[in-house]
Amino acid sequence: MEMMTAIPPGSVGEVAPQRAGFLEPLILKAGKTLASYELVYETYGTLNADRSNAVLVCHALSGNHHVAGWHAGEPKKLGWWDNMVGPGKAIDTERFFVIGLNNLGGCHGSTGPASVDRATGQPYGAGFPLVTVEDWVASQARLMDRLGIGRLAVAMGGSLGGMQALQWTLDFPDRIGHAIVIAAAPKLSTQNIAFNDVARQAIVSDPDFHGGNFYAMKTVPARGLKLARMLGHITYLSEDLLGEKFGRDIKGDDYGFNYEVEFEIESYLRYQGDKFALTFDANTYLIMTKALDYFDPAREAGGDFAKAVAPAKAGFLVASFTSDWRFPPERSREIVKALVKGGKDVTYAEIDAPHGHDAFLLDNAHYHKLVAAYMDNVAAEVGAGDRARPLIVGGTELEEMKGYSGRGKP
Amino acid sequence: MEMMTAIPPGSVGEVAPQRAGFLEPLILKAGKTLASYELVYETYGTLNADRSNAVLVCHALSGNHHVAGWHAGEPKKLGWWDNMVGPGKAIDTERFFVIGLNNLGGCHGSTGPASVDRATGQPYGAGFPLVTVEDWVASQARLMDRLGIGRLAVAMGGSLGGMQALQWTLDFPDRIGHAIVIAAAPKLSTQNIAFNDVARQAIVSDPDFHGGNFYAMKTVPARGLKLARMLGHITYLSEDLLGEKFGRDIKGDDYGFNYEVEFEIESYLRYQGDKFALTFDANTYLIMTKALDYFDPAREAGGDFAKAVAPAKAGFLVASFTSDWRFPPERSREIVKALVKGGKDVTYAEIDAPHGHDAFLLDNAHYHKLVAAYMDNVAAEVGAGDRARPLIVGGTELEEMKGYSGRGKP
Repeated sequence: MEMMTAIPPGSVGEVAPQRAGFLEPLILKAGKTLASYELVYETYGTLNADRSNAVLVCHALSGNHHVAGWHAGEPKKLGWWDNMVGPGKAIDTERFFVIGLNNLGGCHGSTGPASVDRATGQPYGAGFPLVTVEDWVASQARLMDRLGIGRLAVAMGGSLGGMQALQWTLDFPDRIGHAIVIAAAPKLSTQNIAFNDVARQAIVSDPDFHGGNFYAMKTVPARGLKLARMLGHITYLSEDLLGEKFGRDIKGDDYGFNYEVEFEIESYLRYQGDKFALTFDANTYLIMTKALDYFDPAREAGGDFAKAVAPAKAGFLVASFTSDWRFPPERSREIVKALVKGGKDVTYAEIDAPHGHDAFLLDNAHYHKLVAAYMDNVAAEVGAGDRARPLIVGGTELEEMKGYSGRGKP
Repeated sequence: MEMMTAIPPGSVGEVAPQRAGFLEPLILKAGKTLASYELVYETYGTLNADRSNAVLVCHALSGNHHVAGWHAGEPKKLGWWDNMVGPGKAIDTERFFVIGLNNLGGCHGSTGPASVDRATGQPYGAGFPLVTVEDWVASQARLMDRLGIGRLAVAMGGSLGGMQALQWTLDFPDRIGHAIVIAAAPKLSTQNIAFNDVARQAIVSDPDFHGGNFYAMKTVPARGLKLARMLGHITYLSEDLLGEKFGRDIKGDDYGFNYEVEFEIESYLRYQGDKFALTFDANTYLIMTKALDYFDPAREAGGDFAKAVAPAKAGFLVASFTSDWRFPPERSREIVKALVKGGKDVTYAEIDAPHGHDAFLLDNAHYHKLVAAYMDNVAAEVGAGDRARPLIVGGTELEEMKGYSGRGKP
């Protein structure tokens, strides 16, 4: 008998990524065309007979298609939203068919800057076009076509993922029943863009970046990517959480009066930065931050966001977290106000959570119950059945804290 | 007749830096010793007969000794606090003798990492010791000795400068009458340290940094210094000010879908970063940020800040700005609470200003009137006479905005 990893309650268990190739060119907002591309995706649960129970999970800046469960041989590398998606969880895979994909331009399997451009036989590198939230939604719609899903029950995501869910309701109003838009904003603020540009400048000014064509040079702009991640990280966590977890704790017994790691927070950030630089693609980071900067549905509606959301027919669950200073609650309320003004069906929740922007990734019973309750209504609407077991809210650790072995306060 | 630059009302006019050399070794908190050093300083106004009217102005991270007026041939390069210091201004040079100096470790004339170490005949570079706020105060006290000033009427400063003013009251309680502590904090928060470390990592990971000994290599770690400044800049300005001034304005008519400068805020930050990288020393930047990180008077008092400030005998004016998110008002209130707990004489003002941390450098009639009123009391106390003319609150532009020619909203 072969050893099997036991499947814990609420887990989808072992999963395998799948691939879909598209030969029909995709015309991008940037005016360029992707002649062909592949999307890597995962699915959890079963598509019901009338194909009405599909839930698309859209990822944020550094996310990917691996939303729940684990891959063969990697039982500890759980999907990034494993606490949200699974049998009995808020997104209940006993009732819903859940799809996660890696976005175009990504670095986890879908066609992106590190992929080989068939036209040249070389990695795209700097030649990979900038993609937008609209482009992603268009590519996602094609994946839904491929899977035989004419209409999504729900598109959902946090942060940049929430922006995609929102864009779905504008670009395909007849193909989506509900959007769950978490910790998002109708567009980036000036400060948001400013932080993104510092991160991008860190990457492009790294001598190992080689104008984006570092693959051929066998280099990785690790210094720049590390800085980008360190900076991003500060904005994902609340000041209070940082203070509680690391305070002014130092590694040694006294100040070292040198530039080695000294404060615990330095140790933590550098560790996260180094880890990220080893696993993430610098061009993808640039593409993702530009997609964030560009997102602005109101732009083509004369700056009127309420007018921009007029086409939407979906129901909305909008959620924000009190301590999120990247996209604080007032940004979510901008979305809500415009939707309400347009007479849309909107539920809004401002969730008291201390973790900052990353709260959308974390267990929080109130938050998960809220999503679960919303999904119960969706299930009733699409005939996806009743919840078979009590809601499972798991004990998932803050992703960014994983693997860090410093002595930060518990 | 020679052409003279007319002296506008409230200006100290043309000034010249002076130098003071110190041969008595200075033992630093880091345990190292500076065998000798020079301080560059400027003075404005006249020291009165009983030497009771001296005001020491301490500078912040990127400041220097040039506080007011202009240098010969540079009539447009006004001192960084010219709006505060001058005849008839809040710090009235008709009544007070004002001293500005460049701190040890600086890059504007005082002994610092770019100075030649007499022991080696080479620039100190990485060999320049880390200095602390306490070290600066000790060196400032020696400069006061040299100038024949036994007791300061006032030590004052914003941000890191305010921390020095506070430290004066603890280390030399009998040599200071009042401390004006503006936009400061009793110690950096975890988030403050985190931002500083990203800035430092940007500098030390720049290949042109050469471990701090870039002088010999004839390089400048301009990429790192630029990133550090861009990042710092974001934290100096309020999110609202950034939004009002730059919004989501773009340079061209439409999105460019490339990595060139696109949003006005990118143009502005990169401009500021480039300008700074050309004029500031990377090692000094590291030293200044570490001095900020290390500042923590409570540390040697078992974490009890109220106990730490017990030695102080000075009167205090503590001021904060509502939109400052680097050292927000609650951080100033921590200082005030500890002082009040210790029965000190404290005036606290929370000033409504939209500019963020940099507000301490700006004209704001309410703010300047407040400082002027406090100084009127000090003047009465030390016999520095009455104000001879109405308070002059000038029209100084936000320093960081100077020279930027983008089309940011006016």
